[in-house]
Amino acid sequence: MTIRIGIIGTGVMGADHARTLRATISGASVEAVFDVDARRAATAAAGARVLDDPLALIKDVEVDAVLIASSDATHEDFVLASIAAGKPVLCEKPLAPDVAGCLRIIDAELAAGRRLVSVGFMRRYDAGYTSLRRTLAAGEIGAPLLMHCVHRNVSVPDGFTGSMLVTSSAAHEIDITRWLLAEEIVAVTSHRPRASSLVGALPDPQFLVFETASGVLVDVEVFVNARYGYDVRCELVGERGTATLAPEAPTLVRRDASASRAIPHDWRDRFAGAYAHELQDWVDGIGAGAARGASAWDGYAATAVAQAGVAALESGRTAVELVTKPPLYK
Amino acid sequence: MTIRIGIIGTGVMGADHARTLRATISGASVEAVFDVDARRAATAAAGARVLDDPLALIKDVEVDAVLIASSDATHEDFVLASIAAGKPVLCEKPLAPDVAGCLRIIDAELAAGRRLVSVGFMRRYDAGYTSLRRTLAAGEIGAPLLMHCVHRNVSVPDGFTGSMLVTSSAAHEIDITRWLLAEEIVAVTSHRPRASSLVGALPDPQFLVFETASGVLVDVEVFVNARYGYDVRCELVGERGTATLAPEAPTLVRRDASASRAIPHDWRDRFAGAYAHELQDWVDGIGAGAARGASAWDGYAATAVAQAGVAALESGRTAVELVTKPPLYK
Amino acid sequence: MTIRIGIIGTGVMGADHARTLRATISGASVEAVFDVDARRAATAAAGARVLDDPLALIKDVEVDAVLIASSDATHEDFVLASIAAGKPVLCEKPLAPDVAGCLRIIDAELAAGRRLVSVGFMRRYDAGYTSLRRTLAAGEIGAPLLMHCVHRNVSVPDGFTGSMLVTSSAAHEIDITRWLLAEEIVAVTSHRPRASSLVGALPDPQFLVFETASGVLVDVEVFVNARYGYDVRCELVGERGTATLAPEAPTLVRRDASASRAIPHDWRDRFAGAYAHELQDWVDGIGAGAARGASAWDGYAATAVAQAGVAALESGRTAVELVTKPPLYK
Amino acid sequence: MTIRIGIIGTGVMGADHARTLRATISGASVEAVFDVDARRAATAAAGARVLDDPLALIKDVEVDAVLIASSDATHEDFVLASIAAGKPVLCEKPLAPDVAGCLRIIDAELAAGRRLVSVGFMRRYDAGYTSLRRTLAAGEIGAPLLMHCVHRNVSVPDGFTGSMLVTSSAAHEIDITRWLLAEEIVAVTSHRPRASSLVGALPDPQFLVFETASGVLVDVEVFVNARYGYDVRCELVGERGTATLAPEAPTLVRRDASASRAIPHDWRDRFAGAYAHELQDWVDGIGAGAARGASAWDGYAATAVAQAGVAALESGRTAVELVTKPPLYK
Repeated sequence: MTIRIGIIGTGVMGADHARTLRATISGASVEAVFDVDARRAATAAAGARVLDDPLALIKDVEVDAVLIASSDATHEDFVLASIAAGKPVLCEKPLAPDVAGCLRIIDAELAAGRRLVSVGFMRRYDAGYTSLRRTLAAGEIGAPLLMHCVHRNVSVPDGFTGSMLVTSSAAHEIDITRWLLAEEIVAVTSHRPRASSLVGALPDPQFLVFETASGVLVDVEVFVNARYGYDVRCELVGERGTATLAPEAPTLVRRDASASRAIPHDWRDRFAGAYAHELQDWVDGIGAGAARGASAWDGYAATAVAQAGVAALESGRTAVELVTKPPLYK
Repeated sequence: MTIRIGIIGTGVMGADHARTLRATISGASVEAVFDVDARRAATAAAGARVLDDPLALIKDVEVDAVLIASSDATHEDFVLASIAAGKPVLCEKPLAPDVAGCLRIIDAELAAGRRLVSVGFMRRYDAGYTSLRRTLAAGEIGAPLLMHCVHRNVSVPDGFTGSMLVTSSAAHEIDITRWLLAEEIVAVTSHRPRASSLVGALPDPQFLVFETASGVLVDVEVFVNARYGYDVRCELVGERGTATLAPEAPTLVRRDASASRAIPHDWRDRFAGAYAHELQDWVDGIGAGAARGASAWDGYAATAVAQAGVAALESGRTAVELVTKPPLYK
Repeated sequence: MTIRIGIIGTGVMGADHARTLRATISGASVEAVFDVDARRAATAAAGARVLDDPLALIKDVEVDAVLIASSDATHEDFVLASIAAGKPVLCEKPLAPDVAGCLRIIDAELAAGRRLVSVGFMRRYDAGYTSLRRTLAAGEIGAPLLMHCVHRNVSVPDGFTGSMLVTSSAAHEIDITRWLLAEEIVAVTSHRPRASSLVGALPDPQFLVFETASGVLVDVEVFVNARYGYDVRCELVGERGTATLAPEAPTLVRRDASASRAIPHDWRDRFAGAYAHELQDWVDGIGAGAARGASAWDGYAATAVAQAGVAALESGRTAVELVTKPPLYK
Repeated sequence: MTIRIGIIGTGVMGADHARTLRATISGASVEAVFDVDARRAATAAAGARVLDDPLALIKDVEVDAVLIASSDATHEDFVLASIAAGKPVLCEKPLAPDVAGCLRIIDAELAAGRRLVSVGFMRRYDAGYTSLRRTLAAGEIGAPLLMHCVHRNVSVPDGFTGSMLVTSSAAHEIDITRWLLAEEIVAVTSHRPRASSLVGALPDPQFLVFETASGVLVDVEVFVNARYGYDVRCELVGERGTATLAPEAPTLVRRDASASRAIPHDWRDRFAGAYAHELQDWVDGIGAGAARGASAWDGYAATAVAQAGVAALESGRTAVELVTKPPLYK
């Protein structure tokens, strides 16, 4: 059985997903594509149908499942339409930019009575993070106490704001914290270091501290103009040892008095394998009738913590309040 | 278009390939399976047809391409039958155990007038080796002078012989040397260290030295009962620097007074990505009408060097004599 | 010229210093030793004179310089007596446990009109930290913005308190921050993670955040019962790159499916070279008539920041107030 | 007790030794210095006596022990004179450039009835090599079977010959092989790779294979114009695991898309600690009345293997013939 995918939004991520689906995913095809820029849609479609109405794409009888990679503000409507159409949907993070939107999606899914929504937190499919999780689960380092995270980008486009360091960048650390530790984040504190002089007015880097329900402290450096490379790191500190995410380029070059390994340029280099595994697992799950990956609840919790993080930029330690978790997500 | 694959031989490698084709390869399906052990074939088939005649499988009109993972001695016949049927064929190494068999395959392919044969030297698809090759091609380390290789297995099954350290294990180093340096190996010398006392009568490890046409010296430790893990390493030494294959597990664990990274147990852990890329590239090539990966010539050269290596175990430096390379392989 | 050293206090550190002075320091001898435990003093003396009065030791005409490694509460008196005797004195940290004591020492030194006091912040002599400082000074990573520190011990003796995580352990991070960044720390915030269940009532680990005068943010994990080893790490994050203290054992062992390097057991393994360089530099400085290493001002500032850190354990962000820096220390 | 050292030869190594003795060695002083270049001698002397006759220096009543760092051809005479004077002598390698000279020194020492001679194989004092030896002795990797060595220099001065790659460079691998494995080398084979085009007529690099008495195979790449840095590596391969000499610069710098560690420029950077430990141990041994470090026998064996290595450059596998080892060296 081949799952026929409809893609909404073919910017950088959507076009990447289209390529990955065609090039390396078993059991899936790109059936239809929509983008506000029809030319961009045609390029990404590579022969598949280009539709001019995203809601029509969602309802199209030849489309079995929907992949949403359009702008953040449109996510909620397209996810709700997919649920209404009874179709599995993989939505790039954020599920919705605000908590209210996420809750409307949860309500719709509860009304539908089954999980249809997956959120594109691809790090859950990275070989390093999955190894960290297995190491923790195996008891190799004892109970977790602290977690140190670093999230660095080479640079960000114009228009990137201080809030986006939390909502767009740290969102990944929020999700991976919840997934690795299997508990919720209950408070966020922000510390603001001296800003880089190379970046105009953006308050970059930022330093966040999360507290989890059990008291694990998670600190996160977010630095979106780190210049030297795309670098994501994580050390889990347990009562008896630590486990560190430490991916290395597979070759070491010695020349000019130094021994060096390459650092990737962006998240697509770094997480290409994770994206492919995420898509394959999503497609496999559709075939098996089971939703896989991060759920609408995970998407909601990530947005709620991010919102607290944005508040913390101004007002210090901010508690995260979540609604009661519906049984569907347990 | 979906390429329908027929698989001959479903031992460890064949069964792995069947799983990979189903699980992660885009544009391919497992159409039919043959194995001398019908039960094993049925397991690997996972619903696909199980045939009881490998030659019938090759000729089957529903089979577009053939994957050969049966015992070494059967390779030649099945490859020749595939060529006769005009079908693309991916044959696990060795192409044939002896030079004469390889030459018969080359002759058949020349008679067919086009490349149909690919040989399963999967390291050419490994992220580390491809990075080494790019580093060399980019001139980062200058012209190559030496190459140091290590090939270690945890253990080998009973019946593994001293010759097989060359023909089965070092075969990969033979191919990767030719591929990285883009030239032929012209002589092989063998040195025999003290054998491991843990391995019965097997002369294990062995130490081989290859000379290439331009004079690059390649040394290879082959140690098939190294116990501690599966470990493949390679350092290219150039006039201005060196590049080293140095894959690392993506996580580092600190406990009990040591900082450690896991070492894989066998080649399937280590080269899972390479096998998947090899199969995808083969399938893509079939779709595009072009043979990809190592050619019949490469399979022939590998067997010729391995044969010289076996002779060198007894008689010191042994020259490698190759026939003239047909234009089809240039 | 041989500098004749008198040592006060021959517990772990003092006995170590006595051994180092005898074994590997050029131009110095151990002249006299005092300890409250006369037997312990005799062992450490190894033939040198054992005195029963520390103040007599300081005044002894055969003693050229004084090394203080007695209990923290005694430091001030012995340092003041050394200044009064006009003798160079190297005092283990803390210079004094409270700010008032440190200021009395500064006053005495100002009255003496010259620097006689050095404080034993040995990390300034570690090959890794000095390399970090050179890297920063060379502009290789741009202006500093953040610094991430980890300070882990295997375990601590009974009686170790929560305050001591700051005053005894983090004291080293306080000094090295000031030395690396060449500016003062102006505020301290404390975060308290879940405590290790293996440690009784001690609030261990702790997580501190320092702010420097220019706005650099320095976070410090202090975990004195980390079990697995003695581990001190530091990453300086600049506008264009980062530099990380990452010492590695000089050998890598591959066995039992892992590649591992040893982690030291305690600070004496880790900083043996730094202690030797510190002592040699102190001795050389005495010969040259110049005080070397951390000054009384550095000792004062470290105590002032540590005191703020202890306050921060209870009351959140705490500002550090320093007196005006006397010209003697500029 | 201070050991008063007389130094013969104050070129690069001798001047370094003079500095080290003064700066960081406990219990020693530089008493007198000789060099064929009197001005160079005066600089290195730094106030010590400059003598114009090396034999007078050896006999000088104020000189307790002799350090020889003059040109290779002069070593034998000065060592013999030191033995005749009954004084401990530390001679830079080679003990003598030819086997006959080494044997004359052994005879003289046997006649003297006690060990007075130490040979400057400083790697025996390197933290990495000593850790390798402990790892092997502890049985962590099982019985040794193979050893892979690399010895690379940035460049060599004009006049460096092909033979010197063996006698001057590989001499260190010869000694360290004998010391790590605690057995003699019985044969040497040479392989000649393509020479670097950047080095004129010098046959550089070379590749040597040693066989030890028990059958361990040791391969050595010697590349004295490797350009990129001074790099010495060693992997011991045992029946159950391997141990690798893998020293790393203590800091890691991330910038410009790469994570890198510095590689030292020459042997003095790399082995500064080993030289200091060697000198300290030699001085301590003199105080204790015991010869330390590599013996005259070790110096003889190294020269004998090197001589076989030079022969092997022309004639393939060459056996090493040693005289019977006198009891003095057991």
